Amino acid sequence: MLHPDRYFNPDPGVRKIARELYGSVANLPLVCPHGHVDPALLSEDRPFPDPTELIIIPDHYIFRMLYSQGVPLESIGIPPRDDPEQREKDSRAIWQTFGDHFHLFRGTPTSCWLRQEFAEVFGVTEPLNGSSAMEIYDHIAEKLKNPEFRPRQLFERFHIEVLSTTDGATDTLEHHQKIRESGWKGDVRPTFRPDAVVNLMHPSWRDQIDRLGDLTGQEVTSYDRYIAAIESRREFFRSMGATATDHGVTSPYSYEISHADAEAIFQRALAGGGTEEDERRFTAHMLMELARMSVEDGLVMQIHAGSFRNHNRAIFERFGPDMGCDIPLRAEFTRNLRALLNKFGNHPNFRLVLFTLDESTYSRELAPLAGHYPALRLGPPWWFHDSLEGMKRFRRSVTETAGIYNTAGFNDDTRAFPSIPARHDLCRRVDANFLAELVCEYVIELDDAEEMIVDLAYNLARETYRFA
Amino acid sequence: MLHPDRYFNPDPGVRKIARELYGSVANLPLVCPHGHVDPALLSEDRPFPDPTELIIIPDHYIFRMLYSQGVPLESIGIPPRDDPEQREKDSRAIWQTFGDHFHLFRGTPTSCWLRQEFAEVFGVTEPLNGSSAMEIYDHIAEKLKNPEFRPRQLFERFHIEVLSTTDGATDTLEHHQKIRESGWKGDVRPTFRPDAVVNLMHPSWRDQIDRLGDLTGQEVTSYDRYIAAIESRREFFRSMGATATDHGVTSPYSYEISHADAEAIFQRALAGGGTEEDERRFTAHMLMELARMSVEDGLVMQIHAGSFRNHNRAIFERFGPDMGCDIPLRAEFTRNLRALLNKFGNHPNFRLVLFTLDESTYSRELAPLAGHYPALRLGPPWWFHDSLEGMKRFRRSVTETAGIYNTAGFNDDTRAFPSIPARHDLCRRVDANFLAELVCEYVIELDDAEEMIVDLAYNLARETYRFA
Amino acid sequence: MLHPDRYFNPDPGVRKIARELYGSVANLPLVCPHGHVDPALLSEDRPFPDPTELIIIPDHYIFRMLYSQGVPLESIGIPPRDDPEQREKDSRAIWQTFGDHFHLFRGTPTSCWLRQEFAEVFGVTEPLNGSSAMEIYDHIAEKLKNPEFRPRQLFERFHIEVLSTTDGATDTLEHHQKIRESGWKGDVRPTFRPDAVVNLMHPSWRDQIDRLGDLTGQEVTSYDRYIAAIESRREFFRSMGATATDHGVTSPYSYEISHADAEAIFQRALAGGGTEEDERRFTAHMLMELARMSVEDGLVMQIHAGSFRNHNRAIFERFGPDMGCDIPLRAEFTRNLRALLNKFGNHPNFRLVLFTLDESTYSRELAPLAGHYPALRLGPPWWFHDSLEGMKRFRRSVTETAGIYNTAGFNDDTRAFPSIPARHDLCRRVDANFLAELVCEYVIELDDAEEMIVDLAYNLARETYRFA
Repeated sequence: MLHPDRYFNPDPGVRKIARELYGSVANLPLVCPHGHVDPALLSEDRPFPDPTELIIIPDHYIFRMLYSQGVPLESIGIPPRDDPEQREKDSRAIWQTFGDHFHLFRGTPTSCWLRQEFAEVFGVTEPLNGSSAMEIYDHIAEKLKNPEFRPRQLFERFHIEVLSTTDGATDTLEHHQKIRESGWKGDVRPTFRPDAVVNLMHPSWRDQIDRLGDLTGQEVTSYDRYIAAIESRREFFRSMGATATDHGVTSPYSYEISHADAEAIFQRALAGGGTEEDERRFTAHMLMELARMSVEDGLVMQIHAGSFRNHNRAIFERFGPDMGCDIPLRAEFTRNLRALLNKFGNHPNFRLVLFTLDESTYSRELAPLAGHYPALRLGPPWWFHDSLEGMKRFRRSVTETAGIYNTAGFNDDTRAFPSIPARHDLCRRVDANFLAELVCEYVIELDDAEEMIVDLAYNLARETYRFA
Repeated sequence: MLHPDRYFNPDPGVRKIARELYGSVANLPLVCPHGHVDPALLSEDRPFPDPTELIIIPDHYIFRMLYSQGVPLESIGIPPRDDPEQREKDSRAIWQTFGDHFHLFRGTPTSCWLRQEFAEVFGVTEPLNGSSAMEIYDHIAEKLKNPEFRPRQLFERFHIEVLSTTDGATDTLEHHQKIRESGWKGDVRPTFRPDAVVNLMHPSWRDQIDRLGDLTGQEVTSYDRYIAAIESRREFFRSMGATATDHGVTSPYSYEISHADAEAIFQRALAGGGTEEDERRFTAHMLMELARMSVEDGLVMQIHAGSFRNHNRAIFERFGPDMGCDIPLRAEFTRNLRALLNKFGNHPNFRLVLFTLDESTYSRELAPLAGHYPALRLGPPWWFHDSLEGMKRFRRSVTETAGIYNTAGFNDDTRAFPSIPARHDLCRRVDANFLAELVCEYVIELDDAEEMIVDLAYNLARETYRFA
Repeated sequence: MLHPDRYFNPDPGVRKIARELYGSVANLPLVCPHGHVDPALLSEDRPFPDPTELIIIPDHYIFRMLYSQGVPLESIGIPPRDDPEQREKDSRAIWQTFGDHFHLFRGTPTSCWLRQEFAEVFGVTEPLNGSSAMEIYDHIAEKLKNPEFRPRQLFERFHIEVLSTTDGATDTLEHHQKIRESGWKGDVRPTFRPDAVVNLMHPSWRDQIDRLGDLTGQEVTSYDRYIAAIESRREFFRSMGATATDHGVTSPYSYEISHADAEAIFQRALAGGGTEEDERRFTAHMLMELARMSVEDGLVMQIHAGSFRNHNRAIFERFGPDMGCDIPLRAEFTRNLRALLNKFGNHPNFRLVLFTLDESTYSRELAPLAGHYPALRLGPPWWFHDSLEGMKRFRRSVTETAGIYNTAGFNDDTRAFPSIPARHDLCRRVDANFLAELVCEYVIELDDAEEMIVDLAYNLARETYRFA
């Protein structure tokens, strides 16, 4: 089922070189600098409960597609917030529904990842569909009972060199602590993602501010204390191995406001009286502050911009966030990031990794910015674009202006732990194919390509995220 | 002249599979759910007058290109509104001008369609150019005298299973009625397109409102009566076989205003005093109302958004609309459609088909929306993008996020009746090639592709438009 | 190192035809209607000083990439404005730095151009890198001493048929004059680029207005005199062989204001009191005036829209403009150009060539506009998009709607004189390959392609820019 030449250009000349280039990196360790694996998995190291809990329920790529064709979320195990009992609890029934609808994924990266995961992680030998669903379920369920399929053994078998998780500013990092104390050698690091304390409109902002005070031992009653508390948390994250921060914003607008304005907005928010304009200005200002902190503490700053979260209000109210209804928005970086790049973009200690959901910005804004500002690197194709065609468009759109050395290597960005090797493998294949095409078009020499594939598969991620 | 492998990837492996996949659907009936064929053609079934009247004069794809290179519209037979006599009336002279300029169409879909139409419908064996023009004219003119070339016989020869026309809200559908009464078996259905009664700024809006009153037997003096009249016309269209509505809007902005506001705007418009802001808000509100009606009566709702109509004022004033001077605008769907999708996008009875002229929305907004909301399907590449490259970009941009099952199959969208088979054939070839490439890249299995090509060529259009 | 099939599709069938098509135009003369070569080079015809002064220091494509990876501009010879002595002056050291970082250009057009320039202009036989840098430097330095490598001999060897430079409105064109008087036969023409007198916010605007008065013999104290002075300068440029004007604008917004408003804005600007809104309206109005002048005097109007100049303020302040920190902006043409196209777009004497940095406008706005308005031609892919992939995207995006005959052929747009042949060669190869793919997909016939490649490589540029 898994062809050794999958994802390569059918031209025999290109395919031959793609195969060679891919072969040289196929077994390199996996560097995972950005993703959403739950660290509790690795601190607790419990067996995964069953195929449905492992593969379907945490994966919004899967249930969004089923939902788009009329399959209710409850019926595939997603619990309504007000009445969790309404969800289907029969894992086998859910898996059967999944199998019945697996044709929907034809031509999608989800199907590519899952086919490889089924075959290489679990040894499944036949395609998933309505007829084979139960047999495959039983096969995987049986495997999951085996200690080899517990998280830490999988981590090792996957040859993961380092895995960064994504954690809130007020996270205690207890699981990271437990992993360290356990004596297990897996390198699992936190990433500082303070969205809930930065975004004044976040539903839990007020609680988070209180929690920030509790954790830092000083009540957060002023803007200065707020900044100090954030700096203190960053320091704690660094002490736990973090090398990066991450920031989710609707728009990458950056703009420095006066200290007095920042204080005034902060006080209004504390009093529960903030406005959308306050939020917009405060976020723009905080991007500047967070960049300043990165210059000082060396944490790599990531910005993920342009997602309209929870677009479908009915689904959000009934099931909560991350239900597959975040929809991209048009993005603008040239004007929006100018303040930040003007202030910090020339600084040798600053590193900024940008992610976009608007592919029209690749050649128009991002590659020109990254091909100039020393601080800037382009993150890999994100979310909907983390796919064969998405990766091809990215490389074909940015390389000519920014080269490959202003890009950040690969992120798997997943919460689906057992899919990690398949995601890296797909990217390594697409990159090998991209380089093979350039070799066969005589744009680069083969010996260049041989170095470049190692950089794309391994070195750039390590170096960008300062693991090296 | 027509190569059997046309439009396929030159790679022999891909070509072989593309040929097989195409072969399996080449002769399937044509499903034509959206287009602009004049139903009078099929109710009257008169012979087409001559090649120029048949092929050039109704086709703004043709005369826009000639005009762009300095050929005056009058000289190719387009009548000025104020002095129709100024137009060239010699069909042979016009055809000669067309032949002299046919090189302008090299590399365009118009050239692909016409070459196939000439060859397969009319048996023309040589390329059109200045030297061959008159010979080809005579050849086609001779054919048109033959009863086999009358509209109904062509309809049958083309193997058209169903053809939907596009009709105004106040159209009496007399031609559809005559077709039904004639005993001829051709399935020709109306589509409800109420733009002229919805768009308050439409030049004939006031007349259309009066006409709406006449047709529904109650003067349209209030917003409620207006809504009731529209509902009544929809019911009439449904009784005549309509399965869909269609709405042309500059922006797909949707927003519900209060009943009092709607009434106030409506009254201002009736009194001749509407503003552009009135029009913008009323159109946004009417999209909500029309979606509500679709939920209730089951008519599939189509939105064609983003064309700046009649961009060239001098041409519009002299020749009228549809003269090849409609120019696309940047589009935005994520925010604009939120109100509509939040209210109706989860409803099982609602189906919305979206069309865009802004390809940057494919991967950024449309595929993510269609890959989530159950009501939504993506219409095929529209207008300027209904072409080989346009179709490739569409499939390569949306499939990875939305799959093929959230797309609507093909629309020929044409008023050029004899070009219909060539348009479907081109799409079937491009789809077969797309799937063949995926097979050869090992993204899908061949047996998947064999099912998918039938879905793309036939089933998806039938099912999306509720013909099934 | 230079493969004869470079930049062609690896498919053997496509490659064979691409090779034939390319072969038919490989040796045609070079038509260079837009670029930034300094005319002093050709009037003075001095030997080039050394490889670094010739190749690195004038080329912001090169130093932007080095800067993006942390190489300070001073260290590669760029003089700071306030202290020019701070720059590295050792040309050999700079070249070594360049060689050490040449891997950054892998996959970029700069690497393609330079490899060809090194090989074909200078006979370099090995790849540039840190080890070979000094040897290559010496090799090129030796060549530059040879009279064959002086500018005029290179011009002839390059087979340049005509070269247009880019010159300010107040330029005396003394170098063009000297070339004419020298008896040398090279055809070098000025282009009228009045940005500094049109853009009220330009730092030297006031000085330029004074200079305009000096040159035209009448102080520019009113809007009417300003217009008359511009017309007078255009006439002078025409007398010196100019066939075109060029206009750099942030946005292509066009809008005619009243004479009184124009006068009022002009007087405010003279008095040093203009505003950004004044500048925006005045530029929009001047686009209308400049188009009107083009209708009258027949100079082809070029608009280069959408670059945010000097984005990195620190670099601008320290080193000045054109330091590789101009970043593209989202562009809009449909609404912005409507006033201009409505007034002049149908005029047979008007020709407008548009350039964009926003590729999303190709299929959405530019091809539909060019496929309708007779005055309009699309300029070739500009700046960041003047590359293999950029050219492919351009042709694949615009041809289906606008054909090739509404495009303007190639511009090398360079200040790097010895790179001119490599740039034309790359474009001819990409165009040949594009046509070969269309032939192998049976979209066009081979005999069409044979004509089209000559049009793309030679005729369209001559005809668009009225050299013919």
